[in-house]
Amino acid sequence: MDRILALARAAALAVVLPVAALAQDLASWNDGATKTAIVDFVKAATTEGGPGWIAPEDRIAVFDNDGTLWTEQPAYFQAFFVFDRVKEMAPRHPEWKEQPPFKYVLENDMAGLASSGEKGLMELLAATHAGMTDEGFNDILEKWLAEARHPKSQRPYTEMIYAPMVEMLDYLRANGFQTWIVSGGGIDFMRPWAEKAYGIPPQQVVGSQIAKDYEVIDGKPQFMRKPDIFFIDDGAGKPVGIDRHIGRRPVMAFGNSDGDFQMLEYTTTGEGPRLGVIVHHTDAEREYAYDRDSHFGKLDKALDAAPERGWLLVDMAKDWSRVYPDAK
Amino acid sequence: MDRILALARAAALAVVLPVAALAQDLASWNDGATKTAIVDFVKAATTEGGPGWIAPEDRIAVFDNDGTLWTEQPAYFQAFFVFDRVKEMAPRHPEWKEQPPFKYVLENDMAGLASSGEKGLMELLAATHAGMTDEGFNDILEKWLAEARHPKSQRPYTEMIYAPMVEMLDYLRANGFQTWIVSGGGIDFMRPWAEKAYGIPPQQVVGSQIAKDYEVIDGKPQFMRKPDIFFIDDGAGKPVGIDRHIGRRPVMAFGNSDGDFQMLEYTTTGEGPRLGVIVHHTDAEREYAYDRDSHFGKLDKALDAAPERGWLLVDMAKDWSRVYPDAK
Repeated sequence: MDRILALARAAALAVVLPVAALAQDLASWNDGATKTAIVDFVKAATTEGGPGWIAPEDRIAVFDNDGTLWTEQPAYFQAFFVFDRVKEMAPRHPEWKEQPPFKYVLENDMAGLASSGEKGLMELLAATHAGMTDEGFNDILEKWLAEARHPKSQRPYTEMIYAPMVEMLDYLRANGFQTWIVSGGGIDFMRPWAEKAYGIPPQQVVGSQIAKDYEVIDGKPQFMRKPDIFFIDDGAGKPVGIDRHIGRRPVMAFGNSDGDFQMLEYTTTGEGPRLGVIVHHTDAEREYAYDRDSHFGKLDKALDAAPERGWLLVDMAKDWSRVYPDAK
Repeated sequence: MDRILALARAAALAVVLPVAALAQDLASWNDGATKTAIVDFVKAATTEGGPGWIAPEDRIAVFDNDGTLWTEQPAYFQAFFVFDRVKEMAPRHPEWKEQPPFKYVLENDMAGLASSGEKGLMELLAATHAGMTDEGFNDILEKWLAEARHPKSQRPYTEMIYAPMVEMLDYLRANGFQTWIVSGGGIDFMRPWAEKAYGIPPQQVVGSQIAKDYEVIDGKPQFMRKPDIFFIDDGAGKPVGIDRHIGRRPVMAFGNSDGDFQMLEYTTTGEGPRLGVIVHHTDAEREYAYDRDSHFGKLDKALDAAPERGWLLVDMAKDWSRVYPDAK
């Protein structure tokens, strides 16, 4: 009988504990209007019978990655990966010296690279991410993640994630939300580390994709990565990516740039309770301060739209007590 | 105190019940080698420390839909939907009378239609599934699902699902498996009813897809369906679809035709415990009997490969005590 009671208690804790995860778990969020608005939304979403109640199956929260879950300055981290790869491969491609966007990389010309836009980035992605198997790509990526360091902090890139946002992901999951990444970044660039960093499994990562073929090589199934863009999950592509992978309209969306505009719009114009949140980079001291004029993560149209659409602005300098997790 | 105990008991049941879901829940499966092999695999997968243990995050089971979860004769049900649509639209397309594959539909020529293959089917899909919003398509589909009847059974198509397979899905989920549909059928054709029929939510449905654009019409976000194929989730496309949507190699795969060969191959050639299962249509009396010579759901190459690859063959006539759920 004691054992049954102990089991029951353990089971009860297992069920009740998540529901008990409340605002105090957002330890890196300073008290204030932003935190209060998010916590109030989540409390209402989990209050059955209340006006803000959201059925568990509809509790879908989507997060941009670059600039929302981790730093995206002085350039997207995937761009640094591409730079390192292009430089490694350059001796075999002498024509790249004259050819944009490759020449910008070899010349460390960030502004030039930004001017070649999403399309230029995708060309670089195809050149550096294709022509090998998934396994081969993963090996290169894992090695890079272990060795590469951010130019400013000198920390591994996977330590440049935002501690307050990791807490937010945990907090939402504890309240029955499914947390998804919906990023312009490459799906295969994010998946190997997203689960460890954010607690988001591969099947909840939506991102840009190149073409792949399934091939059996020496009796072993492989995915061959091809130099063609299959899908760009940015801007108006984000709602499409959400539709393809989730098939349900999210009720919460977190972004930080104009590339998230349509995702925020799609999320917040549905019926019932909805919340859009924009991480505003106001923290030149601890991170970076930028919005309308930035090469990467430009926030202009969405910043103008935020007040009328009721999108919350997170003031990084004011709302976060720390930016990054403590160094390991 | 009583209330706390009652809560604890309810919580304990909620947690313990799923784990206790065992073979007896496969009520429509006759005792025999097939059922035993599946149950043994699942028991081993959930026995921590044992040689067949599979970590919870790796418990991914993928299911073909047509011919594996519901009937696919005398033609794919989505084909019947297309037939009905083409006939409705034909007065506005007089050219279809001479134009394959449309003419086959208007002439009720199944063999002709089958001869136009996956490509012909996709042309029909584009013509009948595009040029409208997702909302518009869903309305048409819901109406059709409510009204249309299977030509042989006269039952609604969503009642032509296999009761033993619905039990299998429940049984696997109760043992911590994530259940996914990976079908050559259209993702938007399956999602509206898959959750009710199979307990599989939209985000775990992988299927063929047409192109879509996100558009804001009168301030309301819409997905415009375009007449271009975006992805065909069949044959070698199935592992690719799995990679795109799941990003993890499944440990169990259920199929019934050569279109599932690569999915079965990809699933069962990985390391550790794996199980491939083929539903063999041997039941002319209660369902249909077909394999190598069928226009739809041809099972030839995978039937030959099954013994050497250790894929289980479900003998529908022998292994299932009933095929369909009782009529409502």
